[in-house]
Order: sequence, then C-alpha cells, then structure tokens
Amino acid sequence: MHLFILIVLIACSLAAAPASQPASVPLKVEQWGRFEVALPGPREGNPFLDVELSATFTWNEIARTVRGFYDGDGVYRIRFMPPAVGVWRFVTRSNRAELNGRAGELTVTAPSPGNHGPVRVAGRYHFAYADGTAFVPIGTTCYAWVHQPEALEQRTLATLKASPFNKVRMCVFPTAYKKGGDEPPRFPFERSADGAFDHARFNVAFFRHLEQRIAQLGELGVEADVILFHPYDKGTMGFDRMPAGDDDRYVHYLVARLSAYRNVWWSMANEFDLMHEKHDVDFDRLFQILQADDPADHLRSIHFSARMYDSSKPWITHLSVQNGAAVDDFGRASLYRDVAGKPVIYDEARYEGNIERRWGQLSAEQMVEHCWLGTIGGTFVGHGEVLRDQSGESWTSRGGELRGQSAARIAFLKSILTEAPPVSPIDRFYETHVGGRAGEFYLVYFGSERPAEWAFQLPRIGLEEGMTFRVDVLDTWNMTSTPVEGPAVRLVKQGMYAFAAEGERKIALPGRPWMALRFVRVGAAPTTAVAPVNEAE
Amino acid sequence: MHLFILIVLIACSLAAAPASQPASVPLKVEQWGRFEVALPGPREGNPFLDVELSATFTWNEIARTVRGFYDGDGVYRIRFMPPAVGVWRFVTRSNRAELNGRAGELTVTAPSPGNHGPVRVAGRYHFAYADGTAFVPIGTTCYAWVHQPEALEQRTLATLKASPFNKVRMCVFPTAYKKGGDEPPRFPFERSADGAFDHARFNVAFFRHLEQRIAQLGELGVEADVILFHPYDKGTMGFDRMPAGDDDRYVHYLVARLSAYRNVWWSMANEFDLMHEKHDVDFDRLFQILQADDPADHLRSIHFSARMYDSSKPWITHLSVQNGAAVDDFGRASLYRDVAGKPVIYDEARYEGNIERRWGQLSAEQMVEHCWLGTIGGTFVGHGEVLRDQSGESWTSRGGELRGQSAARIAFLKSILTEAPPVSPIDRFYETHVGGRAGEFYLVYFGSERPAEWAFQLPRIGLEEGMTFRVDVLDTWNMTSTPVEGPAVRLVKQGMYAFAAEGERKIALPGRPWMALRFVRVGAAPTTAVAPVNEAE
Repeated sequence: MHLFILIVLIACSLAAAPASQPASVPLKVEQWGRFEVALPGPREGNPFLDVELSATFTWNEIARTVRGFYDGDGVYRIRFMPPAVGVWRFVTRSNRAELNGRAGELTVTAPSPGNHGPVRVAGRYHFAYADGTAFVPIGTTCYAWVHQPEALEQRTLATLKASPFNKVRMCVFPTAYKKGGDEPPRFPFERSADGAFDHARFNVAFFRHLEQRIAQLGELGVEADVILFHPYDKGTMGFDRMPAGDDDRYVHYLVARLSAYRNVWWSMANEFDLMHEKHDVDFDRLFQILQADDPADHLRSIHFSARMYDSSKPWITHLSVQNGAAVDDFGRASLYRDVAGKPVIYDEARYEGNIERRWGQLSAEQMVEHCWLGTIGGTFVGHGEVLRDQSGESWTSRGGELRGQSAARIAFLKSILTEAPPVSPIDRFYETHVGGRAGEFYLVYFGSERPAEWAFQLPRIGLEEGMTFRVDVLDTWNMTSTPVEGPAVRLVKQGMYAFAAEGERKIALPGRPWMALRFVRVGAAPTTAVAPVNEAE
Repeated sequence: MHLFILIVLIACSLAAAPASQPASVPLKVEQWGRFEVALPGPREGNPFLDVELSATFTWNEIARTVRGFYDGDGVYRIRFMPPAVGVWRFVTRSNRAELNGRAGELTVTAPSPGNHGPVRVAGRYHFAYADGTAFVPIGTTCYAWVHQPEALEQRTLATLKASPFNKVRMCVFPTAYKKGGDEPPRFPFERSADGAFDHARFNVAFFRHLEQRIAQLGELGVEADVILFHPYDKGTMGFDRMPAGDDDRYVHYLVARLSAYRNVWWSMANEFDLMHEKHDVDFDRLFQILQADDPADHLRSIHFSARMYDSSKPWITHLSVQNGAAVDDFGRASLYRDVAGKPVIYDEARYEGNIERRWGQLSAEQMVEHCWLGTIGGTFVGHGEVLRDQSGESWTSRGGELRGQSAARIAFLKSILTEAPPVSPIDRFYETHVGGRAGEFYLVYFGSERPAEWAFQLPRIGLEEGMTFRVDVLDTWNMTSTPVEGPAVRLVKQGMYAFAAEGERKIALPGRPWMALRFVRVGAAPTTAVAPVNEAE
C-alpha cells in the first residue's frame, strides 16, 4: 500500500481548521464529520483542467466516490463526510501517477453531542437530521452576505447567532455591484490582466472564504442553503451566462469542496426562470451533476420567480417557493404540498420591508402571519427583511443587523414548534384554521381575526369521546402562552364531523388579532389507528 | 390477400349503428370517426380468454395497433378511430387461423362538420379538440346514470341535451344497490347459477348498452369521462376488489370496445384512495395497460378522496381533483396548477345539495361561485347536484332531472367562456380576482363582495399606455351582461405594477354579490411580446 498523506485534517465537528494544520495517523473522524486528505501534486499547466482526482471510500458493501479538487499551491484535497460508524478504507484514482492509488484506512467514531448529521426529508412533508432528530426549518435570506467586508460579515454571524434562524439562503456568486462602490472582496475565478474572468481557473481564496463561513454557520446550528446560480449578476461579471462546460466545471468544483460540510443544502438557482440564457434542460443537467457528485446526498431545490420548475423530477427533494399569496390567507399553503408530495418551503413569501417594490412591503405583523399560515398548512415559511439602512442596503441583500419586528415573533413560533410533532393540515378541505397531528396536537390560528371566544370544535379525525386536552392561548405577536384555567378539556362528539368540549365549554380570547390556540392531548392515546378522513360518495 | 370481412360498419360520426347493419366495400370512414371490422370466429371454450386478436393500421410511417374483442354470438370486432386523412391499410393478428392475417384498405376522409376529434391538452393548462377548436370543460357528474331503467336514462339524456354540460363523469361499474330495490338492469359479467360473477366472461349486452349511451352523449357534444373503478361497490358485487389479472382483463376489454369513441376520457378511479384493496402500484399498472392499449391516446386522470395520486406520472394528462376548499375562496385554485404543470379540473368541488353530508350542502350561489373562482384561477370546476327527490335519489347519483339553480348560471358562464381566449391567472401572487389573457381579455370577479364601484386597475403584464378596452358588467347570478356606457376605456400607467383608466374613470357596480367585469381589448395589439412578471431581487 502506497500510503503517502501529506496533510490530514481530522475535523471532528464543523469547526474549520486552517488548511496548513497537520495531523497524525491513525486517521479518525466522527460520523458526519469532515475528513480531508491533502496530497501534493502538479502545479504546472492548469491543474483545474488537467488533473483528474477522486477517491472511493468503502465500508462493508457501501462505496462512496468523491471528487478531489485543486486548492492551489500544488495541493490537492479530497473531502468526505462518512455516513456510518466503522472502519472505512479509501483509495484514490487519478490521471497523474503521484495522485493515483493512494490508500488508507479511516476509523469513523460515533458523532459527538450536537452533531445530528445532515438534514433529510422525513415523513414525506417534513425534515429531520440524519440521526432522526426533528428539524423545523426557520429560514431567512441573506443573498450576498459572504461578499462583504470582514466586519460586516462578522456582524451578520453575530446577528444569526442571536436570531431564531436555523437556515440561511445565500449566493455563491456575487450580485451586481456599483463600480468603485461595493465591489466584492473576492471573485470565484482568477482574472487576466485585462480584468476578464478565466472560468477555468478558480480563485481558491474565494472558496476558502466561503467554506469558512459555511463552517461558522454550522457552529451556530444554521443550515447553509447554498444558491449556485442567480440572475442578479445582470451580465456585469457574467457568471449568470457562462458556457455550459464552464457551468458544469463550476458545479463539479463546488460540490467537491462543500459536500463534506454537513450543514449544506443545494439551491440550484434563485429565480431560475429569470436566467434567460439558460433553459430547463440546463438545470436538469446541472442537477444530474450535483446528484452524481454529491455522496452526502444533500437536499436539493430550485427557486423560481413566476414559472415553477418541474418539482416532480427525481433530484428535487423539496420545493423552494416564491409566492407571497400562497401564505397570506387561510387554505392556500397546503395546496402546493398536496400536488408536490414533497416538503414545501415558502422561501420567499414577500419580505418585511419598506421599499417601493411590492414584494418588500410586508409589515412585521404580516410577515409573522405568513409564517403561521404556512405552519398550519403543513409547510415552512422563510423570513426576509428589506428595511433599508442609510446606505440603501438591507439584511436580505447583504446581512448586518436585523431592524424589523418579525424575527422575535418567529422565535416565539419556533419555540412552539420545537415542542410540537410535525404539523400538517388535519382536515384541509373544510378546516383551514387547524394544523397539527390528529388526535395528539393542534394549533388553531385566527390571523387578523379578533375573536372574543372560541366554541371548542376540532375535526373528528383521530379523536374519540373522553379524550382530554390541555389548552394554551397563544398571542403570536406579544409572544405569550397562557394556559386555559380549569380541568383539561374533555371531548364529546358533535355532529358527523367534529368533537366539542364537554359542557359546551368555550375558550375565552382577548379580542386581539394574531391569536392562536394550542391543544396537547393529556389523556389516553386513541384506541384506533388514525386514518385520513374518508368520505365515500 | 385474404380479405374476408363479414360485417363492416362505417361510422361517419359517433352515431351508433346496430351491430347487424351490413356495409359494402370500398371501406371508408371519416377522420376521428369509428371504423369497425367484424369477423366470425370460434364460439367454443371461453373466447374471452382463449382468443387473441388485434389489428395494425398503417398510414405512411404511422402504425397503430388495436385490440379486438369478442362480442358474443361468435362475432369478433376490431374498432379504430383513424387520426389522419388518407388511405390506411390494416392486417389482423390472432392465435386462431380464421382470425389471423385478414387485411384491408381503408379510405379516411375529412371530418364532417361538428366532428372536431377527441379532446387533447392544449397550451399546458387548457384543452382543445384535435382539430384545434377550443374545448372548455363544463362538467357534471352522474355516477350511475347508465345503470338505470330505460325511461330514466332517456330523461337523463334529455336533461343533458338542455343543459350547458359538455362532460359527464360516469361509472362503468354499478354502485351498491338495495336487494330487490334498485338492482341495475345489467351487470358487466356473466353470472353462474349461484349468482356469482364470472370475471372471465363479459356480459356483452352490458357493454353494448354502455357504448350506446356513450355514442348518444357524443351526438349531444358531451364528453364521457368514463370511470373504470370506484369504491362504491362496497363488496356487494365485488368489482372493487377483483384479482389483479381480472382487473387487467377488464381494462383490456373496455379499451378495446371504447377507444374508437372520440368523446371518451378515461378516469381510472373515483376516490382511488378509498379502494383499500388496491395500492398505487396497481393503478400504475392499470394506467400502463390503458396507455399501451389505447391508440387514440384519450385523456387520462384519476380522482381522489383525501390523498392525491402522483400526478407527475407520465400517463396522467390532467388533474381530476376533489377539493371544495380550493375553489371556495380567491387565490387558491391556481396553486394546484402551478405545481402540476397540467390542466386542473376540480371535478368534485362539493355539490349543490340538501343532504346531511357536508360535501352535498352547497347553495346554488356557492356552486356557481366555485365555478367562477376556478375559472379566474385558470382551472375548471365540475358541477354536481345532490338535491334528493322523494325516492332519496339525485342527479349526481343516477341522473334524471336537474332541480337546482346552478346549472342555468353555469350556462351563462359557459357563454362567456365560449367567446373568450383560454383563461389563466394574470398576476397570481398579487391579483387573485383577475383572470384572462394578458393584454387581450380579462375577467375580474368579486364573489360575494358587494362593491358599488370599481376603481379601474389591471396588472401591467401585456398592457401599454393608450390601449383601449370595452367593458361589460356581468351579473353572474342574474345572468346579464351590461356594456359600460361611453367611449372605450383608455389605459394609463399607474405606479409600478398597474394600469388605470384615463381620467380616473371608475366602473359603477350595483352593490349586489356575484358580480364580475369583462374587458375585451378593442384597440391595437401590444407592440411587445407578453412575458410573465419579472421581478429580480
């Protein structure tokens, strides 16, 4: 065995280690940690084009092949996120002898506390970490936050740390900038003397910086929803209109660098349908590359402006939707879910903001209402904020500080959902105010209505006479949860379709908007399995 | 060439000809007409099982193979709906020598007036006949109308003739009946002495009757949305729980008999998810048979109760949806369309009725509102009526007469749509009251709102300063269309997203519910192509 490893980084968590940090054998990494092999190789020619490198990791009958990448200065790296505990073996393959046939053994240990693995789809419409721990996406958007001055990026990290957000949508490529103004500190490609970008020579400093930020998000428990392409270049840098071969090479390179970061999600594009130089078949091809290259099988989506990409394609794991209308009234959010048969995230449901564009004019109350309407519809709603500062910039454009009022209320919603089972609509053809898990947990949301009382009524599905529930009155704006006094509510059948509270008990409400009720079963479990409502003609 | 044709029926339209009517050579049929070859063959054994028969029809490089079927009394038939004008050749194939290798030539002539061919999907979300004539489905449901006494079936046909409906959902298999009460006159299978159904012996009288009714619907211009399976047997006859092989044979037989009727649509099942003896893979298999056997490629859908079938599967041409909530408020109907990327028919959006079940309690006003809300959302809504007569039966159960108030208003809607281009939402994230075709035609619907005036405002897409429109005030309940007096409305830009009327002109409305406005462009066409709204971050 020709084992010659120059540098091995053993990343036991997502903590980013400096590229030069040496490590010694035996090779060891925790499950879903980041293992890295660094090998010296050729510097001459164009290593990005000339050198092919990959490694196959095997464990029992499982084999995973990952691409290596050139990281400059004659160093090639191979990264791998092992999906199972045990002793893995690996061997490299390359068109260069010095990089070919390098082999080794890797001991994968149990994950450390707080490492739950990458997020996966769970139960068709929801998410969970690979270890089964529930994950409820509470997302926000900071498109260009990694293309800002260091101080601003640090402020963004500090803001995220103090926020409820556990997912952030962020662009790899910079957005259009004003010459001599907000030029990004780094570009993804090397430039020739005339300033033209050479798509065949990646700027490794750019990608190292991106990785550092993704690792820092991981330390904060924030998933990085990495947007590979976007139309906001507007041809200024041209990254929105590269030839297909350059797009492909970029995707290969990005996946080779990032797929071992367990908090990565792939968003193929933002507003893909505004990228008029590309067609659906281009995105199909890029998704196929993404899927083939990524042994970690991170979540994959694509975001649209007006026309949806075909979400039934097998590489789409969940829907990333722009549609404010779908979550600004009752009974809408769940419809996307019905047809898609996949989780739905309304990543852009308009933004809290004060700009003249109508998509950036939500009041904080409306932004929070959107989140609740999406929640009871069994979907997820992303936050965004375009409250412009003196420079005209905003959180969603480039990060910094949150100035709005919605984030705190979204934290309150998160606290409710953290204690809840996965929420789905219960009886979506008739009861559009109710979400939860039938027979166990319910949220009844009133939006901008101002009821003074609520005549107890829940859809019959999963309920039985005599079940008991404790009830809390939630003020989603003032962020309070107030238990309803007295004994637990006891159910009695009411008509064909519902259960009411024994003694015609009603729930008093304060006559304010943005109220909700929470019901948690405290009595015995149902005696029969819960089935969806069945109504034969 | 061994051409021996016992009986050839040349059906120039959908008119049903008696099975015994002889015809002479030369063989001739019009495009999309029904050609039939009848051949004598074996009577012994079980011809339904023992005899294989098909014919391949060829024209230039086009070949279409259709199955033949046994029609009793030693007669085998092969039916074919030719899709193109010209001289077609055909040859039979069979495992019985006397049915094998029969060949002939068929002259296909131009379709006669009124024959527009089968209905196809057109423009992604709409429908058109094969000759390009628009088809707007105005559907109703009469589940068991072909299992009734002759007099009642004739009354149903008379009702349909006088109605606006151009599509009817109808079951092949009878629904559960009361013993000694409403037993169907015919069953699809022969019975043995003990009354058991023999799934391997079709009752040809049953299918001839079904065909006659389908042909009569065709004469009325009504598409037969033929439901192959349903759960309303409840095991009484057992057709909802036959073994897979029997299901397959039934589908083969039905398609062989019906695919040459140009007004056939296939609905694989009603409330498929209530057929607990079947799984999605069964329906997948049956769809594959349907698709492979049907050379006419008729429309295919499946109707659900609570859980949707995966509508992205390639054999699904359009969605047949049960969901009353999706069309009982603004901004919902189009969401199914967004995700599906296929036409959406809300075939069951609750019914006008007076029964205790909540799905049969719509007022006529609500039923009509559902149709309008679906329409402006770019979808189609089916009518149903469960106003019970003395015997407890209703239009939607078994036909007869319409007693409700919605059908006449649906006729008014049909008159509007007949003169309109295909309707889609225009700016669905923001303007949920507006449907039409951008720059050309608009419907603005107010539902139960009672506005006294409307400040002219249309979404900017496809509009330009100086365009002129004529405007009609539509009372969708009282079925009146009243032109707005004065000169045509002239557009001026208003803000970033809309056009208003020159001179701040407002449209007076009567303060009643169920009003709508219709805008038809009378000025010049737009100077630029119409693109969807583009809003970059």
